[in-house]
Amino acid sequence: MSRWEPNARGRLEAAAAELFAERGFEQTTVADIAERAGLTERTFFRHFADKREVLFSGQEQFRDAVVGAVAAAPVGATPLAAVAAGLDAAAGLLQGRADLAGQRQVIIDAHPELQERELIKMARLAAAVAVALRERGVAEPAATLSADTGAAVLRIAFARWLEENVARPLPEVMRETLGELTALYAPAAPVSSH
Amino acid sequence: MSRWEPNARGRLEAAAAELFAERGFEQTTVADIAERAGLTERTFFRHFADKREVLFSGQEQFRDAVVGAVAAAPVGATPLAAVAAGLDAAAGLLQGRADLAGQRQVIIDAHPELQERELIKMARLAAAVAVALRERGVAEPAATLSADTGAAVLRIAFARWLEENVARPLPEVMRETLGELTALYAPAAPVSSH
Repeated sequence: MSRWEPNARGRLEAAAAELFAERGFEQTTVADIAERAGLTERTFFRHFADKREVLFSGQEQFRDAVVGAVAAAPVGATPLAAVAAGLDAAAGLLQGRADLAGQRQVIIDAHPELQERELIKMARLAAAVAVALRERGVAEPAATLSADTGAAVLRIAFARWLEENVARPLPEVMRETLGELTALYAPAAPVSSH
Repeated sequence: MSRWEPNARGRLEAAAAELFAERGFEQTTVADIAERAGLTERTFFRHFADKREVLFSGQEQFRDAVVGAVAAAPVGATPLAAVAAGLDAAAGLLQGRADLAGQRQVIIDAHPELQERELIKMARLAAAVAVALRERGVAEPAATLSADTGAAVLRIAFARWLEENVARPLPEVMRETLGELTALYAPAAPVSSH
């Protein structure tokens, strides 16, 4: 069994997504997930505290990547440009999990407590981005405004991408959504010309 | 006692705010709150399900007022202008509770589960505003983008107002914050000239 272990986490995630979709979130046990993945429960608990956590796997790495991209934006980039770099990073990562994203969202949409966890996760991401912007020299309230509105763009673009059945690349949907926000808040710019 | 009853809700809120500030949220019981207000526990439970609910009192009326202001914005108003009308309504209502707002926020900031409830409340408000905007004929994603970024302005302006010890009128801080957001997303405007 140990030759499979390096991929255990990914297999557990895929097995959980399948079972949640087939049987529902409540009706799936950790034992079911481990069995479907061809692994033991003990291996499951080496990777996840509970079945809920499978749905929120990798969020620290996601946050680090987004915050890292904001921090790494060129010196002199506007707050908007730095946030756009973070959104590009987020879109690239989520695009790589397109096969699981839709199933995951169906489960989250059906469970208020998971929706709350998503809200909290997004609020923490926005707070971390605001810190990164302040470290770039962006003053308040511009830093928090940029981070919070960036989080809104991420959430809305992601929902749109799923609604379109991930037919277009998420980075494209993200850029388009950011463009729509810019148009909304810049009345002088051509709002409806694309 | 009944001659006091018409004001029972407000007195319970004020008593709770005092006690939460003096003793802490956990150390305050419903019996303490009722006693401080000169009322019975039974009266308390006619108005609130538990002591947590005192902190979130009036949120439906608040949401209705904000959504109503968005819906009542002049025909032809831009999404931004309709959201600004909602923010004005929100600021006016919160300004009227300035004496309790700071105490309340200290308690919420100290309790993650109350912060989560605030997040959820704000997400619901934003969702209701997005519905009102769609009913005005605003398409998606503009409706949700406008509502979500409006919620960010509300949250940030409110925090700023408290940080400044409610020295300025909240409607003024709200308008200023909305102006900063507009400047951030309108690259042609002077972003860093203040």
